[in-house]
Amino acid sequence: MKKTTLLCAAIGLAVTTSTAIADPLRDRAAALFSPIPTEAPEIKGNKLTDEKVELGKMLFFEPRLSSSHLISCNTCHNVGMGGHDYLPVSIGHGWQKGPRNSPTVFNAVFNAAQFWDGRAADLAEQAKGPVQAGVEMSSTPERVVATLKSMPDYVERFTASFPGETDPVSFDNMALAIEAFEATLITPNSRFDQYLLGKADAMSNEEKEGLALFMDKGCAACHSGVNFGGQNYFPFGLVVRPGADILPVGDKGRFAVTNTASDEYVFRAAPLRNIELTAPYFHSGAVWDLEEAVAVMGTAQLGTELNEEQVKKITAFLRTLTGDIPEVVYPILPVSTPDTPRPVDMVDY
Amino acid sequence: MKKTTLLCAAIGLAVTTSTAIADPLRDRAAALFSPIPTEAPEIKGNKLTDEKVELGKMLFFEPRLSSSHLISCNTCHNVGMGGHDYLPVSIGHGWQKGPRNSPTVFNAVFNAAQFWDGRAADLAEQAKGPVQAGVEMSSTPERVVATLKSMPDYVERFTASFPGETDPVSFDNMALAIEAFEATLITPNSRFDQYLLGKADAMSNEEKEGLALFMDKGCAACHSGVNFGGQNYFPFGLVVRPGADILPVGDKGRFAVTNTASDEYVFRAAPLRNIELTAPYFHSGAVWDLEEAVAVMGTAQLGTELNEEQVKKITAFLRTLTGDIPEVVYPILPVSTPDTPRPVDMVDY
Repeated sequence: MKKTTLLCAAIGLAVTTSTAIADPLRDRAAALFSPIPTEAPEIKGNKLTDEKVELGKMLFFEPRLSSSHLISCNTCHNVGMGGHDYLPVSIGHGWQKGPRNSPTVFNAVFNAAQFWDGRAADLAEQAKGPVQAGVEMSSTPERVVATLKSMPDYVERFTASFPGETDPVSFDNMALAIEAFEATLITPNSRFDQYLLGKADAMSNEEKEGLALFMDKGCAACHSGVNFGGQNYFPFGLVVRPGADILPVGDKGRFAVTNTASDEYVFRAAPLRNIELTAPYFHSGAVWDLEEAVAVMGTAQLGTELNEEQVKKITAFLRTLTGDIPEVVYPILPVSTPDTPRPVDMVDY
Repeated sequence: MKKTTLLCAAIGLAVTTSTAIADPLRDRAAALFSPIPTEAPEIKGNKLTDEKVELGKMLFFEPRLSSSHLISCNTCHNVGMGGHDYLPVSIGHGWQKGPRNSPTVFNAVFNAAQFWDGRAADLAEQAKGPVQAGVEMSSTPERVVATLKSMPDYVERFTASFPGETDPVSFDNMALAIEAFEATLITPNSRFDQYLLGKADAMSNEEKEGLALFMDKGCAACHSGVNFGGQNYFPFGLVVRPGADILPVGDKGRFAVTNTASDEYVFRAAPLRNIELTAPYFHSGAVWDLEEAVAVMGTAQLGTELNEEQVKKITAFLRTLTGDIPEVVYPILPVSTPDTPRPVDMVDY
């Protein structure tokens, strides 16, 4: 009798557990997507230490990495604004406009490569780009190193962050420190991730229907993995090429990197994490409304005219990808010294 | 007998206490200067509540108060850079250069009036200036209100911060919230303040000699009170007018506010709190070295050629005025909506 009771109890438990687990939608999703981890990932060749992450944060907020002393990484990848700048394209040195929409820094560590055309292999390589780009921060490695070496606090911090190195204050180490900080800018615990990890009611029915459509209609073919994108390159306008307002003819995407005809208008699939925080959309930053962006994708990439209800549901699902925004305490940056290279365009003041 | 013992003990105590207190230098200093309080001061007509201070912080970091969506209060009054921008003059809308050096926001609440020429009575009035200045953020009250009303999170926060008001999202309330946040940006606990409050060894002998010189030579005539300045207006070049590199002839200071001949080249005495963090110096931002600035002041204002040792000691003293920098957690700003006025200069993107 006691055995039977126990057995029944065991079966009951098994049934309950299996009821909780049996969610074919979640199973399908789990095969395609992974949750954002709660801890910064390890980076090959760049050990994350507290010292290095803190130094990286200072450098991320450091406008003196730009020759004007005005523009920092955070100007265009604002940690209070979804990790970017809510602008179609960013404003850089001399009020020049950049050629493409600024991608979010949040979860960028999970992308296979950086920039819309994937021309940087990792965040450290990426960090060197805007610092030197004439249209962005317009500085040089020599100027950056001279700037950092002019402030004793930076010299100390580089020495502590890169122990044993004979010349720790270098342009490469600046990039590694920034990469280390950026690796901490991750957004776990979105409602989608909670659902994926077993909390069935973390998403509404409409949102779940949106998830099903996202997989059924083919969106997940390009937007999958931990970041819902950011892993591979695809032609924008795979089926129907959008108008020049959305896909300007002057920007041939990855073609500029590979010089291969088949890479014309090819871009890295945008990661969709926190997508509700990253308007305006596309490399052109031409579309402000997420529903409109979803509809454009349906036509351009899938050759499917998504109806209004489908667009609404997919968009509702996409809004479940917003995670916990990292808390960032503003760093205290050292004061300029008489040896700090003066801001350019300011010499006559 | 017992009485005598008690009396002796009492005398002993009095002697000890009076030994600890007897510091004529400190007594002189205490008559001229006050320590920065550890709590934000009360502001008449603007009660500081947690909701209002947090809203004010968001607005302080809000680049969408500028018509370009690039420039926030923090751009020129950077809380990680001594409360200003380490620039001679700031860069504003369209990469225009401002006419004067950006003053620090730290302890600005203790100034009698704001701006180098004192044209704003308080921080709330001040906050409205740069938002509208064509050379700074280049926006309008109407545009600001439309921007804030387009984001439900802001509407909620204004309603909570200004309870009972029928139209809480207003340009005036924006300014009051910013003032509330700025009132929290104070830097108590400098070594000088510790000394003033009784910690005799908080300053070195050289620094104390510098303090004595600062009072003896007449610096304290203009630079006194809680902020070591910021209270009154004086002609720059009271005794000897500095060269046009330091005092550009085109900027007649308070004359532009009062239209009174005697106010030509008159400026508000700069507050000297955290002065080691606020290079470059003067309204022109022309001098990067603090010792040089002290020497210029000696000649221009006091008609005294301070010798090298005196300059060194006064400068050493001034470095004791650096207090604890407030910790600021970066605020999370709401996402732009389809109703948010688009950034100007960006309409063709």
